[in-house]
Amino acid sequence: MLIRNTWYVAAWSSEVAQDELFARTLLNVPVVLWRDTNGSITAFEDRCCHRGAPLSKGRLEGDRLRCMYHGLLFDTAGRCVEIPGQDRIPPQAQVRNFPIVEKHKWIWIWMGEAHLADPALIPDTHWQDDPQWRSLEGYTYYTTNYLLIADNLLDLAHLPYIHPTTLGGDEAYAACIPQVEKLANGVRVTRWGEGINPAPFVQKVKNYSGLVDRWNIYDFLLPSIFLMDSGMQPTGHDAKLGNRFDAAEFRSTQALTPETDESTHYFFSQPHNFAIDDPNVTKAIHDQVIKAFEEDSDMIHAQDKMLKLTSDFKMIPIGADAALSYFRWLVAKTYKAEQESKVPVKVQEV
Amino acid sequence: MLIRNTWYVAAWSSEVAQDELFARTLLNVPVVLWRDTNGSITAFEDRCCHRGAPLSKGRLEGDRLRCMYHGLLFDTAGRCVEIPGQDRIPPQAQVRNFPIVEKHKWIWIWMGEAHLADPALIPDTHWQDDPQWRSLEGYTYYTTNYLLIADNLLDLAHLPYIHPTTLGGDEAYAACIPQVEKLANGVRVTRWGEGINPAPFVQKVKNYSGLVDRWNIYDFLLPSIFLMDSGMQPTGHDAKLGNRFDAAEFRSTQALTPETDESTHYFFSQPHNFAIDDPNVTKAIHDQVIKAFEEDSDMIHAQDKMLKLTSDFKMIPIGADAALSYFRWLVAKTYKAEQESKVPVKVQEV
Amino acid sequence: MLIRNTWYVAAWSSEVAQDELFARTLLNVPVVLWRDTNGSITAFEDRCCHRGAPLSKGRLEGDRLRCMYHGLLFDTAGRCVEIPGQDRIPPQAQVRNFPIVEKHKWIWIWMGEAHLADPALIPDTHWQDDPQWRSLEGYTYYTTNYLLIADNLLDLAHLPYIHPTTLGGDEAYAACIPQVEKLANGVRVTRWGEGINPAPFVQKVKNYSGLVDRWNIYDFLLPSIFLMDSGMQPTGHDAKLGNRFDAAEFRSTQALTPETDESTHYFFSQPHNFAIDDPNVTKAIHDQVIKAFEEDSDMIHAQDKMLKLTSDFKMIPIGADAALSYFRWLVAKTYKAEQESKVPVKVQEV
Repeated sequence: MLIRNTWYVAAWSSEVAQDELFARTLLNVPVVLWRDTNGSITAFEDRCCHRGAPLSKGRLEGDRLRCMYHGLLFDTAGRCVEIPGQDRIPPQAQVRNFPIVEKHKWIWIWMGEAHLADPALIPDTHWQDDPQWRSLEGYTYYTTNYLLIADNLLDLAHLPYIHPTTLGGDEAYAACIPQVEKLANGVRVTRWGEGINPAPFVQKVKNYSGLVDRWNIYDFLLPSIFLMDSGMQPTGHDAKLGNRFDAAEFRSTQALTPETDESTHYFFSQPHNFAIDDPNVTKAIHDQVIKAFEEDSDMIHAQDKMLKLTSDFKMIPIGADAALSYFRWLVAKTYKAEQESKVPVKVQEV
Repeated sequence: MLIRNTWYVAAWSSEVAQDELFARTLLNVPVVLWRDTNGSITAFEDRCCHRGAPLSKGRLEGDRLRCMYHGLLFDTAGRCVEIPGQDRIPPQAQVRNFPIVEKHKWIWIWMGEAHLADPALIPDTHWQDDPQWRSLEGYTYYTTNYLLIADNLLDLAHLPYIHPTTLGGDEAYAACIPQVEKLANGVRVTRWGEGINPAPFVQKVKNYSGLVDRWNIYDFLLPSIFLMDSGMQPTGHDAKLGNRFDAAEFRSTQALTPETDESTHYFFSQPHNFAIDDPNVTKAIHDQVIKAFEEDSDMIHAQDKMLKLTSDFKMIPIGADAALSYFRWLVAKTYKAEQESKVPVKVQEV
Repeated sequence: MLIRNTWYVAAWSSEVAQDELFARTLLNVPVVLWRDTNGSITAFEDRCCHRGAPLSKGRLEGDRLRCMYHGLLFDTAGRCVEIPGQDRIPPQAQVRNFPIVEKHKWIWIWMGEAHLADPALIPDTHWQDDPQWRSLEGYTYYTTNYLLIADNLLDLAHLPYIHPTTLGGDEAYAACIPQVEKLANGVRVTRWGEGINPAPFVQKVKNYSGLVDRWNIYDFLLPSIFLMDSGMQPTGHDAKLGNRFDAAEFRSTQALTPETDESTHYFFSQPHNFAIDDPNVTKAIHDQVIKAFEEDSDMIHAQDKMLKLTSDFKMIPIGADAALSYFRWLVAKTYKAEQESKVPVKVQEV
């Protein structure tokens, strides 16, 4: 159930260097990306239109890419401009060229119909390169469907159970009832815990002496983008009214991009706006997030294995599933609409 | 072709410790077992009813088990008794609880309809903890269907060919015609070799100076339980009439439990009633059996690979197949009857 | 799409020793080969007719082969001649015996209907043991369909791109238009490059001081046999008219034999007729070919991975595909004819 007409994160900007070919499979389609002499990113289907050989094993010649199997040469638009031993180039000899936008350290790609690729649809993630915020670049990889990971992010009741020594801590936080708002392209979740113990990963850098108020307010947007305002501060300072006092604030920014139906690229950062001149704090926060994400990964891969053993397992919904149930319904609806209206995706006219 | 309404061996008693969660897949269903504070075994389906997370990654709280994904808590019957942040527990929030009987060092489980689980149906294996017998606990694992292993046990003509230096020895034994009796729930095989060379594994501990009479008399019972009275003694002492003289007697006890359609748990022991005060003898016998089972495993995995290469291989039956042919027919008949009468297995009412 | 009524290379002669069982899967069928006391090769289906156990784990008794699972004994024709404990041998108790011809260091096998196996159909590869030529024995293995490898051999435009430092060298050679002739059982390709740089692998042993004329003239025959007259010599000596002057001549001899639908055995040699008394030259040529074949293997396995990601990839044909298009058409036609006329392959009457 992979939605195609939407922006996906293909890579961190730093992953694609000048004059190097970077290969990554996205939505079952192999893609090759490179940064041209002007610094712009080009993305092709990583299969030469001739015999399907990977262009990522090809050779850049200026801004043109030569397939190193039989020597076909392609311009930046994906048009074949040279076939050794042949004068006439057939017009259908071209490779698919994907719309790309590079913004706030992420390279976004549009895998669907190119004329629908509106850059205005890309969600804001400016914290990733805003001078008031600090973060490091995270990437991990799952051998599961992306929706199992989305489920995890849509129910933070798991924090104290899966992450007792990192993101979680106080089991009381699991019992806080989140507010769930349906959005046209996602869901907004607001979870407040008041007068609870601080989360261990914050405590490592803030060292609060007493109880805190904690919030996790996030939008989870199609196809699978997680943007969260979260934090905590000493209780008794009207956090809920927007008053910030000795707060630890974060803008967790996460994107899931299906590699295949059963594997997922996971890009993430944890921008913070305190102690921004202390790289040790940034590193400590990032390391804690990585540790927590390994905890999630252990559980989700184990869950996936359980679910794949038989096809007849029935899940029993509980109250905390409101957000994930709505999101899964939204994915299914969007996917269905896309399938029904679908004009077969063709090589772009160039 | 996995029969469900029958007792299977789930584990050796020693595998399931107090207050530890033990995970094992049986008949394609993940199962978690633990020994409670009274020493009793509980077995749940190893999938939380909420989202299928493995309960074997959960936390025991007294005799209750908490799922460590979103914190649901289950009592010993499998009923959910706590959902963080939710007062009402839906009645269908329960995990499947399997009937368990622990007996003579084996933990037996019933994977079918619980109301049919009659402990009286469990075959006798008292030699495993009878003070007159000695044995060690064996376990091995196959990546094949259990029936290929059953075939092996149902035709002991293989002993001299696969096990020339362990269980087998004299090729004359392969030519002895076994007597095969059909039982309602299995098959009884009686094989006598008279005046033949002793088997090497026995010779290692008995050191007979001449020829022996050898017998292998066993029941192979549904689903796949092998219970054998076997032994040998110097020839010329009326062994066949039941007279025992300087005999090496065994009660080989084996159980095959499908993990999945194409993998199998294999539990075994080789109780003996001579030299019972010499642990070296017990160890030597056990080690020889392990070596022999590795020989079987090599052949059966190789056979499995051959059979899986193409689907059109036709087997040519020979006379020695009488027992395995009947047993395979019995499995198919039992399986078919179970499928036809089948009420879909539901979560037990508790 | 595996053609059965044709000769395949099963092994190098040197792979099958006297009195040893050699197992190899060919066209999805497991085969066991051995050299009998007279030096002749016998090949059986590597599954005992009884329960499919591999005969390659059996025991040779003179020129007869005993299955070491339950002891059945087979004569050279594949007839069962002994079943332990049974007097009457059922006539259908026999294993399939494949026609074999050993010639010029290769063991050829016929996997189809035995009465069609005409040794005269075996292509000539006498360079492999002709005293005027020297070569070493090559073998490699692919986890791809054999046709992807055939494609590679049918379009040598890839030489300069995949093999810049071994077989290839001058990119001008890719632009030389080959002549393609349709044969009843294959295709003949003639490629001339005149006044180009010598290929690096030849340069390593010939050290030409100037430009050369280069030719690659080969038959690619069903099922997948590549026989090439190739070479180069200093330009300006009428190479194209057949005049040889300081030439480096080769008879590249290659055979693809499907192991399964998605894996392939690859046998090859590179006979040369110059410097035949210098084993270092033979070794250097062979090593360069091995290196080049690793380069092909990298590309073809990568291509295979790309193609398997989705089923909807459409290839755009170019002019250089003439030979491979014809060959693929010929394979499809031959396969279809074989399927339509097919009498189910039965155990041979013996």
